[in-house]
Amino acid sequence: MGELQSVIKQRRSAMKFHKEVKISKEELNQIFAVNKYAPSAFNLQHAHYVVLTTPEEKALAYEASGQYKVQTASAVIIVIGDTKAYQQVGRINEGMLTLGMMSQIEYDLEISSVTEMYESRGPVFQREEAIRNASLSAMQFMLIAKDMGWDTCPMIGYDEAKLASLLQLSAHHIPVMMITMGKADESKVRPRGYRKPVDEFVTWNSMA
Amino acid sequence: MGELQSVIKQRRSAMKFHKEVKISKEELNQIFAVNKYAPSAFNLQHAHYVVLTTPEEKALAYEASGQYKVQTASAVIIVIGDTKAYQQVGRINEGMLTLGMMSQIEYDLEISSVTEMYESRGPVFQREEAIRNASLSAMQFMLIAKDMGWDTCPMIGYDEAKLASLLQLSAHHIPVMMITMGKADESKVRPRGYRKPVDEFVTWNSMA
Repeated sequence: MGELQSVIKQRRSAMKFHKEVKISKEELNQIFAVNKYAPSAFNLQHAHYVVLTTPEEKALAYEASGQYKVQTASAVIIVIGDTKAYQQVGRINEGMLTLGMMSQIEYDLEISSVTEMYESRGPVFQREEAIRNASLSAMQFMLIAKDMGWDTCPMIGYDEAKLASLLQLSAHHIPVMMITMGKADESKVRPRGYRKPVDEFVTWNSMA
Repeated sequence: MGELQSVIKQRRSAMKFHKEVKISKEELNQIFAVNKYAPSAFNLQHAHYVVLTTPEEKALAYEASGQYKVQTASAVIIVIGDTKAYQQVGRINEGMLTLGMMSQIEYDLEISSVTEMYESRGPVFQREEAIRNASLSAMQFMLIAKDMGWDTCPMIGYDEAKLASLLQLSAHHIPVMMITMGKADESKVRPRGYRKPVDEFVTWNSMA
């Protein structure tokens, strides 16, 4: 338990970053290459990421959020959720079918049951699924980043429609979270915020 | 990077559990005690957990989901999001104020700005925030569980209203995910599902 626990406790939402620090595509790539193992409903992989690193790109994130921090970050990562991820169910499972890890009957059933679930539950559910699954992925992203020496801060204080428009996102790609990322300026570290004791956020029912 | 990466890669959504395995409150408590460090918007800690371990309790999860797996799990964890978490902003920050880590002006500003944000954005945003923040917490929960030797499977195939009613949840506590947890029956392991290559879920913009 040592190392994971230590990464979790060391991960703190960064207040301010060292502006001069750059991050390379290779470093980000290493993080994403591990993060792809995040779980998602029916393995639909709803999460997409838009990486902003140049001053011009970060200016878009600033314009949509008005938050100074995005300008000092080495990268601003826009976590996107795909509301139409379920339409990829055939493509996602095609390899399993081809390799014989799934029969044609199982493949067809997977496509029809997943499609039926998302379509019958409708657009609100599809949007919530995008948020839910992209958030699972985002948490894992932040832990991997910390483990590789990068500080992050998840943010929600932006205008979603404006950000989507500035980034020219497709209508089925919704911004779920903005993650600023860089090397934290330790002179701006605040004490860790209060955390509720376990018994306050867990209902044990019969395990009293 | 070794250990975290290995936990991430070893975590697989369990298909079936060894039914006879029991989990203790102490073991779950250890997981939650680390998981409380998950980030949340404005540190509002939207995530709550309901732990179901007895056959009677798990029968409620089965009734709401119709999924056999919940009956073989050592525990069924209902991840809850609090749509009214923002109303706790004063209480969450009270200790910081008392300890002088926050001035009265900062404290008052935090309360008014967080309240204003959640109330002006309205109930859909409040619900989505509950889903987003509870999902961040849920991902970290599953990684800590794996690191402590427990397999999990996040599930969404339940009737939300029915589950909320069976668990007698308050209206502001919404089920965000069901996590079955136990020791995976390795005879039921499927090959890991296809994952998209990084360039397919990441838009690099200028980092080409």
